[in-house]
Amino acid sequence: MLLKYDVIVIGGGHAGCEAATASANMGASTCLVTMDMNKIAQMSCNPAIGGIAKGQIVREIDALGGQTAIVTDATAIQFRMLNRSKGPAVWSPRAQCDRGKFIWKWREVLDTTPNLDIWQDEACELIVENGEAAGVKTVWGVELRAKSVVITAGTFLNGLLHIGRKQLPGGRIAEPAVKDLTESITRHGIRSARMKTGTPVRIDMRSVHFEDMEIQEGENDFHQFSFMAPHRQLRQLPCWTCYTNKEVHDTLRSGLADSPLYNGQIQSIGPRYCPSIETKLVTFPDKEQHPLFLEPEGETTNEMYLNGFSSSMPMEVQIAALRKIPALRDAKVYRPGYAIEYDFFDPTQLDHSLESKIIKGLFLAGQVNGTTGYEEAGGQGTIAGINAAIRCGGGEPFILHRDEAYIGVLIDDLVTKGVDEPYRMFTSRAEYRILLRQDDADARLTEKAYNLGLAKRDRYDWWMQKKEATESIINFCATTHVKPKDINAALESLGTTPLREGCKLIDLVARPQINLQNLSELVPELKQLIASLPNRNDETAEAAEIKMKYKGYIERERIVADKMHRLENIKIKGHFNYLEMEQLSTEARQKLAKINPDTLAQASRIPGVSPSDINIMLVLMKR
Amino acid sequence: MLLKYDVIVIGGGHAGCEAATASANMGASTCLVTMDMNKIAQMSCNPAIGGIAKGQIVREIDALGGQTAIVTDATAIQFRMLNRSKGPAVWSPRAQCDRGKFIWKWREVLDTTPNLDIWQDEACELIVENGEAAGVKTVWGVELRAKSVVITAGTFLNGLLHIGRKQLPGGRIAEPAVKDLTESITRHGIRSARMKTGTPVRIDMRSVHFEDMEIQEGENDFHQFSFMAPHRQLRQLPCWTCYTNKEVHDTLRSGLADSPLYNGQIQSIGPRYCPSIETKLVTFPDKEQHPLFLEPEGETTNEMYLNGFSSSMPMEVQIAALRKIPALRDAKVYRPGYAIEYDFFDPTQLDHSLESKIIKGLFLAGQVNGTTGYEEAGGQGTIAGINAAIRCGGGEPFILHRDEAYIGVLIDDLVTKGVDEPYRMFTSRAEYRILLRQDDADARLTEKAYNLGLAKRDRYDWWMQKKEATESIINFCATTHVKPKDINAALESLGTTPLREGCKLIDLVARPQINLQNLSELVPELKQLIASLPNRNDETAEAAEIKMKYKGYIERERIVADKMHRLENIKIKGHFNYLEMEQLSTEARQKLAKINPDTLAQASRIPGVSPSDINIMLVLMKR
Repeated sequence: MLLKYDVIVIGGGHAGCEAATASANMGASTCLVTMDMNKIAQMSCNPAIGGIAKGQIVREIDALGGQTAIVTDATAIQFRMLNRSKGPAVWSPRAQCDRGKFIWKWREVLDTTPNLDIWQDEACELIVENGEAAGVKTVWGVELRAKSVVITAGTFLNGLLHIGRKQLPGGRIAEPAVKDLTESITRHGIRSARMKTGTPVRIDMRSVHFEDMEIQEGENDFHQFSFMAPHRQLRQLPCWTCYTNKEVHDTLRSGLADSPLYNGQIQSIGPRYCPSIETKLVTFPDKEQHPLFLEPEGETTNEMYLNGFSSSMPMEVQIAALRKIPALRDAKVYRPGYAIEYDFFDPTQLDHSLESKIIKGLFLAGQVNGTTGYEEAGGQGTIAGINAAIRCGGGEPFILHRDEAYIGVLIDDLVTKGVDEPYRMFTSRAEYRILLRQDDADARLTEKAYNLGLAKRDRYDWWMQKKEATESIINFCATTHVKPKDINAALESLGTTPLREGCKLIDLVARPQINLQNLSELVPELKQLIASLPNRNDETAEAAEIKMKYKGYIERERIVADKMHRLENIKIKGHFNYLEMEQLSTEARQKLAKINPDTLAQASRIPGVSPSDINIMLVLMKR
Repeated sequence: MLLKYDVIVIGGGHAGCEAATASANMGASTCLVTMDMNKIAQMSCNPAIGGIAKGQIVREIDALGGQTAIVTDATAIQFRMLNRSKGPAVWSPRAQCDRGKFIWKWREVLDTTPNLDIWQDEACELIVENGEAAGVKTVWGVELRAKSVVITAGTFLNGLLHIGRKQLPGGRIAEPAVKDLTESITRHGIRSARMKTGTPVRIDMRSVHFEDMEIQEGENDFHQFSFMAPHRQLRQLPCWTCYTNKEVHDTLRSGLADSPLYNGQIQSIGPRYCPSIETKLVTFPDKEQHPLFLEPEGETTNEMYLNGFSSSMPMEVQIAALRKIPALRDAKVYRPGYAIEYDFFDPTQLDHSLESKIIKGLFLAGQVNGTTGYEEAGGQGTIAGINAAIRCGGGEPFILHRDEAYIGVLIDDLVTKGVDEPYRMFTSRAEYRILLRQDDADARLTEKAYNLGLAKRDRYDWWMQKKEATESIINFCATTHVKPKDINAALESLGTTPLREGCKLIDLVARPQINLQNLSELVPELKQLIASLPNRNDETAEAAEIKMKYKGYIERERIVADKMHRLENIKIKGHFNYLEMEQLSTEARQKLAKINPDTLAQASRIPGVSPSDINIMLVLMKR
């Protein structure tokens, strides 16, 4: 049977769902091919969205017109803004979600997206014609034809599960692996390799001694992920923390001989920043304890996730070790942790649009590009979906730069530097992180997305409303004078220097002891103004405050970014035959030839390309 | 790793969930082993519970302290009482359910059942020691040990999926089959054979021309499944009906050569009363149309189920045929229909307790016994779970007789007559169907279940309350006189003969034109009495009305049933060496030896055993 679409997306995980909705919302007739319609956007590992730098990505997806933020808000059972003790550049929203409801909410989003069909089947072969992707064949003998094919297969490609010395094929526990798709891609010259990831044991809440753990409540203020979603709809639940100890470590060490990570069974590299508990022991032999977080899996289930205890040790070792933790001494488990090895494709063979340099019309997003994390997957899926649709409808590829979005940093890192271990986003990976805040993702991205056709009118109108409201607050603060006699008493009580002469409110906002909240208590007109804003006035006021408070930093970073933009604007693709440029170092020649960068700025970020190599290229360009 | 329980249940479908909760609620430490915790109680075929005779089974499960009724009520999106135009003996409740919410509601029930653990894994070997079941081994190398093992593997044992000429192994679409478990059972002398079932295409609601279908709304009166559950919690949705036509049939016929049912690919027998659409064409070549029902799959999804269009034809034939129906001319599908072949075990090798006669401690329930239907599975699961727990805690096996429950009819049919095609319950299979009504399942079963320890105090108290309330209505009607002058005008307006002399209310209730509703309008004290009942007064009043209206029929059937009980009480197991009884017919000797019936009544129901054979046995017994 033959089915025809503009875009087909293979895989219904976090990347695939965003890719499919982005493509369909841009007007491309889109088909999402998924092996199992009951597992759409299944959170395979921890039941949480967001976190440091990852939360920013989700806000960016939202600002672009994506859906992860909306689904997260609808299914959140705990919300926290991480890093609140640091500057707002690194504030990061994070939510625990109800795993089951998350799936069905995503199903609802997909089901109600125009131009989007779902086909339940397993892709087993990429169809390539004239060097371009033309569709896929499925195990049931269906041929799906399209102008763009987006592959978001997660860990399913030749997935191999490990628990102790036991290995079984599988794309995820309880689900079959996909066997033939990789080979149908690599036969065209796309390089693949293996990565590894893992997940911890799941615990029955009824067996936990909560009195021996510390509670970690969520926050109930105004923060959430999407500007478009209703606030906290489900019952909010706490997380719990405890620590490993020497006995736990001794038990785990006793089983290291049977650990697939340390007996040679697993050769591929796992996520550095989500190591298994056995890796933590081996890497930090002197540490006497490691923190663990016990997280609820849903509003109504007893299943809990033990964050920090990922393992592929033999299950009796995992469980024996677990029970050495006082709070978990009687722990009952639903299943042990396990590791999975899977195929990924070298992302340096992709353009910034996430299109393959080798097979045009083939887009790759998510773990198949060597990343880890739902948010990293969703961010890539959004970009892949947008560009897959653009390829059908015409237009320039949509690319986000490093000063525009964490998603831009992520993709630029992938295609420029490649990966030798699962790539996870951190704020430290962004050189302009004061420009890439969670509070201003809409300012950075919504207008672009609206012009693309991805963000719809309602989202655009909300953003314009917020923008105007933010400006009205800043304008009020910039034009409203206060006199020393009216305010000095209050300033002193806030622990900040009294005024000698009158000043504008905006000058006071800059002081660390002062925020819009306490200022609005002193200036009733400001309080009234904020209260009169059309909606989400707390969020708007926070955005205005951050813009005023950090104006200097923001402007300074903007200048640096703009300077770099000059290099970004120097297009070099096709200008040089690198292998013949003897002025460059050998390493630079090889790396440049391999990556074939778009711009001089990208060239400068390739590991092994030095500033002097860049200068040589600049000189040659000027000739 | 070794895990020890009293009872382990293999399989988390409708049979397994009831078996596990029944066993755990009876106090046995129980482990439910399921391959996928996200698919607990997945409705693999139509998203509905109940229906003719099946609805009665669900009411019986509820009365016994089971859970299917509660889960159904919590997730119903349409409820109807079928057969309302006929006598209350065959009234049958049926509900469409939200497929996703049904799964997660069952998860919640399991999660909150004391003594019940879930282990996510795949059983691959039954452990038998000294001829008794001792546990199972899993693919991950875990050994689960128990005194009773309940196998409820549904269609997963060596499942083979068919769509046209394409065949793939699978336990259900998108899920792996279980390979080795069957052989570990049959090697002990338990016979297995193959059956086939199928399911129809799933359709995207957005592609349906509803204006070309007839709407079928649900009912919003007081009826529901459980006496314990809240009423209609989700948005109620309609179903839709349409018909096949000549063009549909011609298209399907054109593909018959590639139909796995008619080209020899599928040898095993499918469900007679849920035939595929191609089987309907072949069986009824003169019929010009067949009715179809388009049923919603959930509150929020566009997925719809096309009841009546089950098929394993090549998918292009299925879809082309579908599009010949005016309402479905533009139909988009999520996946085609498919057939599945799977292993079942000859149920005549079971006792009425559903324990194997060959491997003690092994219980089988659901499709592995050759039945079809969620309700049939749930009913068997309940009995298997009860008896699995009894085997651990001691006590007589719990058996329901044919005059006590449809579940009793079902199991007696299975173990006495065996199956040569998937067995589905019908009211016509019950000889005492006036005694087996949906309204009196609690009267028949709740006290027994309470004494067993399965029904809990709350359920028992509700039933006692209902019982007293029913009696108070009947008592009122039996003792309250009405005079002709007070009631004759009303009787005439209801179209029934006026009274010549006074009578009791109970005599009026017997008249077909009169029900408690209109009587209570005429007799304010009756209305007050009904309104004052503690809860569910509509249901109670209906139960009272049926008891009064059909008193004669009920009593007559009770007498017949009691007569048969005499034969039921004549235990014959171990009394005869059938093969040497030359007075019996050869067929009777062979069949009796094979089934080895418990009682003379059971012997009389064995196909091939004649009344004269029974008489011979009676004579021999008396000697």
